[in-house]
Amino acid sequence: MERKRVLTGDRPTGKLHLGHYVGSLENRVKLQQEYDCTFIIADLHMLTTKNSQENIKASGDNAVQLVLDAISAGIEPDNVKFYLQSGIPEMYEMYTLFQSLVTVSRLERLPSLKDMARDANIEMPFALLGYPVLQAADILCVKSHLVPVGKDNVAHVEIAREIAKRFNSMYGEMFPIPEPMQGQEASLVGIYGKQKMSKSANNAIFLSDSSEDVKKKVMKMTTDPNRIRADIPGRVEGNPVFIYHDLFNSDKKEVEDLKERYRKGTVGDVEVKEKLSIAINNFLDPLRERRHKYEKTGMIEDIILKGTQEVRLEVQKTVYEMRKLMGFNTVQRKLNRKAEKYNKEK
Amino acid sequence: MERKRVLTGDRPTGKLHLGHYVGSLENRVKLQQEYDCTFIIADLHMLTTKNSQENIKASGDNAVQLVLDAISAGIEPDNVKFYLQSGIPEMYEMYTLFQSLVTVSRLERLPSLKDMARDANIEMPFALLGYPVLQAADILCVKSHLVPVGKDNVAHVEIAREIAKRFNSMYGEMFPIPEPMQGQEASLVGIYGKQKMSKSANNAIFLSDSSEDVKKKVMKMTTDPNRIRADIPGRVEGNPVFIYHDLFNSDKKEVEDLKERYRKGTVGDVEVKEKLSIAINNFLDPLRERRHKYEKTGMIEDIILKGTQEVRLEVQKTVYEMRKLMGFNTVQRKLNRKAEKYNKEK
Repeated sequence: MERKRVLTGDRPTGKLHLGHYVGSLENRVKLQQEYDCTFIIADLHMLTTKNSQENIKASGDNAVQLVLDAISAGIEPDNVKFYLQSGIPEMYEMYTLFQSLVTVSRLERLPSLKDMARDANIEMPFALLGYPVLQAADILCVKSHLVPVGKDNVAHVEIAREIAKRFNSMYGEMFPIPEPMQGQEASLVGIYGKQKMSKSANNAIFLSDSSEDVKKKVMKMTTDPNRIRADIPGRVEGNPVFIYHDLFNSDKKEVEDLKERYRKGTVGDVEVKEKLSIAINNFLDPLRERRHKYEKTGMIEDIILKGTQEVRLEVQKTVYEMRKLMGFNTVQRKLNRKAEKYNKEK
Repeated sequence: MERKRVLTGDRPTGKLHLGHYVGSLENRVKLQQEYDCTFIIADLHMLTTKNSQENIKASGDNAVQLVLDAISAGIEPDNVKFYLQSGIPEMYEMYTLFQSLVTVSRLERLPSLKDMARDANIEMPFALLGYPVLQAADILCVKSHLVPVGKDNVAHVEIAREIAKRFNSMYGEMFPIPEPMQGQEASLVGIYGKQKMSKSANNAIFLSDSSEDVKKKVMKMTTDPNRIRADIPGRVEGNPVFIYHDLFNSDKKEVEDLKERYRKGTVGDVEVKEKLSIAINNFLDPLRERRHKYEKTGMIEDIILKGTQEVRLEVQKTVYEMRKLMGFNTVQRKLNRKAEKYNKEK
């Protein structure tokens, strides 16, 4: 039996952090065992972000960083395919062809898009309204069965499902109807509590941080604000240091002991944090080792190239089939044949 | 001094008729003398028409018919370039990249799009809202200076102007700002009066009609409805037979004589129509001759192929420049270089 296909991925916005690990990467490392996984490096989606100009300019380097981070976290480049969205021009075609299969009002009903426009403080660009249609192309171009999503993205997978169904019924069976895999994306609080961990909030511990940096960041972490002295009983629940201890400290007995003493007021913040920084560094050490192995110049680019080439061949076939089913095939096919001949003769 | 560029064209919906000739083709035949003309065969715009499925299926044959009609009417294939829109995949890319340069509300303010959706009795598809953005790509992909338009299309050229300005100011000088050439597109009444000539209204004389067909259609034409006998004075103004006499009968004296006698009630409809059918056939004869010359199998396809190839090379350069200015060039360029190497080694 063929393994089911999973499409997942990120915009290449920068280095990955512990929030990404907990939120999606850890899960993806598991998914690669059971599924045929494709990871999109969604650089075209940078067109619809705030500061898109800067983001696009940085997207090349960030793409390499993103893949290196994912591999260091345990993704096996032999198990999965990474593909750069803008490296597959046929994506544009698929995106364009899908645009007639969804209405403006359907897209305007998605609250996520309005939120994005409001957050960026702009009038909705046409490209942003098309964002879920481009996502549908991301998902359907590799004929994915499953899409791991956070709560916000279920509605976008629904658009992909509608487009796939519409295409299949209008033109002929072509796409599997993708299913969202819910509850697979979570978020982690940043080192200062309150806000979730993110690069822009400057509250992140990156997977690529040195052990020295990790220690510095952990020592600056926010704990229970009411506990102004070590002998005052403290609150463990919702306390960032203990959230991290629970997630990254493999010595469960140590964590229980710290919690108990914290609740009683018999442990200092410094001890809790020192043990946490050791735990996080222990957690990151194998990632650092893998990173070191793959960090050689050009290696990650080769992995992206190989994945992109392989996915592109597939997408080319799919788009060719789409064009054929839709009827764009009379002159075009002749043109393509003649163009090939013409190019060979040159 | 380099000649200015003109972009014009049609959707490949079917055979051209006298309405097309009077409305745009006659003018295009003149434009080719003075300008560097590119004719788009806009098959992708079929995605946003009523009955798009049938239209797309027929678009291959219709594309050939369209070019044959244009050439028979006097367009010189050595003077101009015909290009098939779907034969240039880079159009999709340009279209996608332009989508972030225009807002949804700007497009929603265009009354033409709302009219199109209402006429087709559908909710506005996302593709239809993007129609002027795709048109902007049609115009800008060949860096046109001028676009002959009817009244309805001035607003669409304005969108192309805004997109070109926006791109130039955000990323760097790239596109000339296209100007609409107004009053260049008119319409002709159909053979039964009232409605304008169109294939769907079944009231058209086609450029490819045989002289026998022309005669039959002319004999069925509507004239002055109040003139139920030949001896009743008739109305010349707004009378389809005289509109056609004015346009297609080169014997101006004959036309004046017929008008005078018609006003007096001293000429029968049959004589007026017989003379008109001779005049239209005289007008069409040189077109038939050119048609005959170019009708050989594969010849028109070769013309489309050559034009499409030439325009494609240009568009590829333009899109490459766009990508570079926008910053999509770090990994992508490396990928492209490696992909070329990889393809060669295969």
